[in-house]
Amino acid sequence: MTISMYQASVPSLMRTLNNLAAILEKGAAYAEAKKIDPAVLINSRLYPDMFPLGRQVQIASDIARKGAARLAGLEAPTKEDDETTFPELIARLGQTTAYLETLTPSQIDGSEEKSIVLPIGKETMTFEGLPYLLYFILPNVYFHVTTTYDILRHCGVELGKIDYLGKP
Amino acid sequence: MTISMYQASVPSLMRTLNNLAAILEKGAAYAEAKKIDPAVLINSRLYPDMFPLGRQVQIASDIARKGAARLAGLEAPTKEDDETTFPELIARLGQTTAYLETLTPSQIDGSEEKSIVLPIGKETMTFEGLPYLLYFILPNVYFHVTTTYDILRHCGVELGKIDYLGKP
Repeated sequence: MTISMYQASVPSLMRTLNNLAAILEKGAAYAEAKKIDPAVLINSRLYPDMFPLGRQVQIASDIARKGAARLAGLEAPTKEDDETTFPELIARLGQTTAYLETLTPSQIDGSEEKSIVLPIGKETMTFEGLPYLLYFILPNVYFHVTTTYDILRHCGVELGKIDYLGKP
Repeated sequence: MTISMYQASVPSLMRTLNNLAAILEKGAAYAEAKKIDPAVLINSRLYPDMFPLGRQVQIASDIARKGAARLAGLEAPTKEDDETTFPELIARLGQTTAYLETLTPSQIDGSEEKSIVLPIGKETMTFEGLPYLLYFILPNVYFHVTTTYDILRHCGVELGKIDYLGKP
């Protein structure tokens, strides 16, 4: 076992998106058990100018999909942000992990110094591959997965750290 | 530039704890500006059975300090959980990054398959070094840093993603 750009990216991203899908399943089950309209949870947010749950999930999926594609030097498939239900959000995560699964170590390994140009609004930012992975993709995906978890916890859904980390 | 166990751990952990310290500075400034007792923010939580802000910061610091020490095969310095103010929490993060700074690449590199035995309550869990770093230390630290950010945002502190990610 060695550490490589592939090893540090694709398996971690797939793992956390799979954990996120399981967290959303628990959110959906909670809404059903408590007879809450699932849209209430999907539109919940921690503060008026923060994104609601549904958008957090879309962004987590986007950063993982586009981030891994950029490391591989590929154009990521585009995705409309049109999910409004838990099953749709879970399906989006499934599409994202299915895409990540198509990426191979040979496409991503060696991308430590690859120049990555990132559109940020009307500007662009340029990263090298390694800091892009370690200081942008990973913390960013974990941010949106954690915030989804935090929104559901704040709404009363019973989740524990193991739901976020996944089984060892 | 190559990716190694050191490269994927210590700089990322130092970076996110430094970002967390800057986030706490903004929390302290907000409390002062709004004439809110800082203890109110430090004891805020997103749900009654979640940890409050102060504990989130302590746990982020513990996981980073103990995690990096275990990869290096060292015993991490112990730390009382006795911080009750923003300056004390920020100082704890400073002590943690100062400790991380003492760890060298030669101590951590090559720990991909090192056996890591982790006390979890009365049980122990055994990881290899690489999954311990990628699937436990990093997501766990980002979880507690994000939840601290989410608690402060929920309390009205003006923070943006750049505070969490840090300047590129």
